[in-house]
Amino acid sequence: MISKNQIKYIQSLHSKKNREEEGLFIVEGIKLVTEFIQHQKFDITELFATADYIHAHSILLSNTSFKCSEVTTDELKKISLLTNPNQVLAVAKITVAKLNADLFKNTTSLFLDDIRDPGNLGTIIRIADWFGIKQVICSPTSTEVYNPKTLQASMGAILRVEVISMPFSELLNHADNIPVYGALLEGSNVYTTSLKHGLIIIGNEANGISTEVLKHITDPITIPAAAGNGSESLNAANACAIICSEFHRQLHYRS
Amino acid sequence: MISKNQIKYIQSLHSKKNREEEGLFIVEGIKLVTEFIQHQKFDITELFATADYIHAHSILLSNTSFKCSEVTTDELKKISLLTNPNQVLAVAKITVAKLNADLFKNTTSLFLDDIRDPGNLGTIIRIADWFGIKQVICSPTSTEVYNPKTLQASMGAILRVEVISMPFSELLNHADNIPVYGALLEGSNVYTTSLKHGLIIIGNEANGISTEVLKHITDPITIPAAAGNGSESLNAANACAIICSEFHRQLHYRS
Repeated sequence: MISKNQIKYIQSLHSKKNREEEGLFIVEGIKLVTEFIQHQKFDITELFATADYIHAHSILLSNTSFKCSEVTTDELKKISLLTNPNQVLAVAKITVAKLNADLFKNTTSLFLDDIRDPGNLGTIIRIADWFGIKQVICSPTSTEVYNPKTLQASMGAILRVEVISMPFSELLNHADNIPVYGALLEGSNVYTTSLKHGLIIIGNEANGISTEVLKHITDPITIPAAAGNGSESLNAANACAIICSEFHRQLHYRS
Repeated sequence: MISKNQIKYIQSLHSKKNREEEGLFIVEGIKLVTEFIQHQKFDITELFATADYIHAHSILLSNTSFKCSEVTTDELKKISLLTNPNQVLAVAKITVAKLNADLFKNTTSLFLDDIRDPGNLGTIIRIADWFGIKQVICSPTSTEVYNPKTLQASMGAILRVEVISMPFSELLNHADNIPVYGALLEGSNVYTTSLKHGLIIIGNEANGISTEVLKHITDPITIPAAAGNGSESLNAANACAIICSEFHRQLHYRS
């Protein structure tokens, strides 16, 4: 059972402005919410779940301290942003991730320069997770990590990857003396360049890397296209996937 | 000026059923439509454009034989599927692409086994274009290439890549004696396997490659995750990007 006021309150968290004001965000779906409960990275403040979910996860839920309200499928529809709501919705506290400058020394980090599409941001976090990248730094102009579409696309990767919001100028104070790789249309061939741990910059979907950030790139890299191809670019998340993959290959499987 | 009947007719092409019945599809946006006009791969039957578009593309349009109707921005909104319609919408004829079995011998082809998300299909075609893959074969259960979201995500790559709909059982008659690579969670390390031209299978977003197709895979390959990572998989389009990139690297830039 859920009150009209509660419905209104949760619906208000569908907007970024309210999420930021309240310091809360929404997570949905059996798999994602269950991972959030198990992982305990984020404080869950309240859970809204169908009887089916509560029954199937009774042991897990018995070890938690947040309030769990049973709702009907129709009630869940009212508070959900999904086309097909899936048994459970959690409200959790936003946490502000901190940069770990030590990670620059012996691992690879990503800087996203104005990534605007929530789906792209989510899949980029998922890629980072796959390749063991522990932190993704987003320019403040990038889309919000707590956007429900970002969370869905990240498939729980946000539980393992720190996503930090920080202007590049500030990041520079912490990322001194490391290679700064920029994914560009013109640069060294990523396949034949000897890649080292450092910072990889991925630019905006339409405009690429901003002028301000561009001048700090020490190693421009490019994914060479096939000869005679007619395409102008790759999707930002796909380019990121290919570049992270090539770093992973060279740093772990170079023959 | 556009009549009520025309508006109704174009809106009817927003649905797959009507597109298939009429043999027509819609392309939108300045960049994409202009490429479609220039490329002439698809017969355009009619163009609806604002005065601005017509003025800016007068030379291009003077060399065409299709009907071009000037519309206002408000009229364009009525027939468009985009949130922000962009000056022009074209209606074009669906063409049925044919398999080119010769391409199996000395190039790489993709088979998409039930890719359901139009955005994924579009970006996969864009990836194919980037890496010089000339044909993408889709299982008949895969999403439709003429879906407006697919076309938008492909960014014009559909003009250069043949997208063929064919069951895998039929494809087998043409793809005899070539390596069939399957992107799986367990297989040989894609970075250290010696890759050759052949057929690469990408499976469904949630369920991977179907049992029927699985048994014909000669070379199961996998993208190794970082040690200790917690993620279960990559997005299908990102996995496809990484695998196509690794084929491209090995076949063209192997050191």
